[in-house]
Amino acid sequence: MYRDKIKVLDCTIRDGGLINKHDFDKRLVKEVYKALSASGVDYVELGYKNSKKLFSSKEFGLWKFCEDDVISEIVQGVENPAKISVMVDIGRVDMEDVKPAEESPVSMIRVASYVKDVDKAISMVNEFSNRGYETTINIMAISRDQGVELDEALRQIESESKVNTVYIVDSFGFLYQETTEHLVKKFKSILKTKEVGFHGHNNQQLGFGNTIEAIIHGANYLDATVYGIGRAAGNCPLELLIGFLKNPKFNLRPILDLISNEFIPLREKIEWGYIIPYAISGLMNEHPRAAMALRSSSEKENYREFYESLVDTDLE
Amino acid sequence: MYRDKIKVLDCTIRDGGLINKHDFDKRLVKEVYKALSASGVDYVELGYKNSKKLFSSKEFGLWKFCEDDVISEIVQGVENPAKISVMVDIGRVDMEDVKPAEESPVSMIRVASYVKDVDKAISMVNEFSNRGYETTINIMAISRDQGVELDEALRQIESESKVNTVYIVDSFGFLYQETTEHLVKKFKSILKTKEVGFHGHNNQQLGFGNTIEAIIHGANYLDATVYGIGRAAGNCPLELLIGFLKNPKFNLRPILDLISNEFIPLREKIEWGYIIPYAISGLMNEHPRAAMALRSSSEKENYREFYESLVDTDLE
Repeated sequence: MYRDKIKVLDCTIRDGGLINKHDFDKRLVKEVYKALSASGVDYVELGYKNSKKLFSSKEFGLWKFCEDDVISEIVQGVENPAKISVMVDIGRVDMEDVKPAEESPVSMIRVASYVKDVDKAISMVNEFSNRGYETTINIMAISRDQGVELDEALRQIESESKVNTVYIVDSFGFLYQETTEHLVKKFKSILKTKEVGFHGHNNQQLGFGNTIEAIIHGANYLDATVYGIGRAAGNCPLELLIGFLKNPKFNLRPILDLISNEFIPLREKIEWGYIIPYAISGLMNEHPRAAMALRSSSEKENYREFYESLVDTDLE
Repeated sequence: MYRDKIKVLDCTIRDGGLINKHDFDKRLVKEVYKALSASGVDYVELGYKNSKKLFSSKEFGLWKFCEDDVISEIVQGVENPAKISVMVDIGRVDMEDVKPAEESPVSMIRVASYVKDVDKAISMVNEFSNRGYETTINIMAISRDQGVELDEALRQIESESKVNTVYIVDSFGFLYQETTEHLVKKFKSILKTKEVGFHGHNNQQLGFGNTIEAIIHGANYLDATVYGIGRAAGNCPLELLIGFLKNPKFNLRPILDLISNEFIPLREKIEWGYIIPYAISGLMNEHPRAAMALRSSSEKENYREFYESLVDTDLE
């Protein structure tokens, strides 16, 4: 699949940070950034830009805050540097922390939003856009939010926002090909002046397959992570996506070395991937938090009882 | 997805046996058979029916030979028993070992065949059919055999064979959705009086996704294995497939217990699943044997060099 407009965003450090309180050391982050830049990935997302008034830097690592000077250390000296992205959650960013883009190492700011918060997301991306950043709105938990509110939110984004790209985020790992196709077509039909992005989760081993499906139907912004790292079941594995895309600018080799040298050892220390309780929560269209709690308990392999608990009640 | 004609075949013991020389103990096989029968799976495939004149029972376990009396021990006393399937390779079965179906615990015999051997496969399935068995032809390594020979083989099967079902077997884990769709449509257009089956491999985490794709386009016979066990990257995970199919005859619970109790411990002893060298061989449309050799060596995590070896040469 070759399409010039396709952009790959690696969110290894950002989504992986959800497992370890964003506490990756700078050495690892620099190795990741160097390898991804060499592989031709378009954007590298390092974390969240959260206010230090809301979260303690004693409890969380550097990538919970993504201060410009810390990012500049990572970028410095790297050849053919990938663009830097950071994510913000609504209500958690101190707008004073966001300098004009020309003074910052960050190129893109992505706003994570539920459908219900889209007014706030539009206001934020417009402000970030005014300050010179590329922007996206990432619509989370979309498998639970497919009513008329979604269409209305998309129409509002199209008409009122300066955002460049709107992402479909399969937060619960519930989508399969036909539902992915339906959503991409809906997004493209309403968002006539925006690009469409896709961020899959791998609960049912469909992160990569759904990303291919999104590409087939016209999504041009694609999220992935090295070796599929990410909270719970993790994400579309970057190595599979780069192997699939035939754009000659991409090179698989630096990613293979990165997995050999860094991610095989890391996977021994922190857990992510295809694990049955995450498959069950994906299948049931549930947030993974109950499955994550199970995996932290002594009952971690007791799948049957966990399944019954979701069949019997709705946890949300 | 509910479709009455859909049949699920579990080949956990047969394909898993390729990792351990078919040496599962009878206790495990009985536990698997009991759980799968309780889950509503239609067929359980236990192994290969190979001639003892060709292979030594000292070197291989029981499921390399699948003798009727051994199978009868497994089936005995199980409630709502699933039908039993065995696989044969061309030229490795002693036809004298195959009793009439009414005297055997086996219901279905599946012939694994390359496109080039289809004449032999037709002759075999016709003989098995005459003896009263349901039959399939499983066309292996199909991603390398999509020329006019494939169309000719399918036309010959349609006109000359008594086979019930013809399987698309993605031996190398190379297919993705569009190639799966193309093949299912081709099979259905030529095999007007046969059912179409799909057996995916999971090298690129597309085993389940491609199986869904095959269902969407009309394949009714679907292979899967518990926790995705199978040679190299393994297969479509049965638990995901059963979770996806909405046919009320299926029950996920016995499969979840089976994974908790048997397959989590088993995975500590033998290796299968998403492992980078298998992803690379899938991406390159190669047999996994080179990747399997790598995984048995001290260089098992040296992905870069392995990738270069496949880029530079064609190993087949």
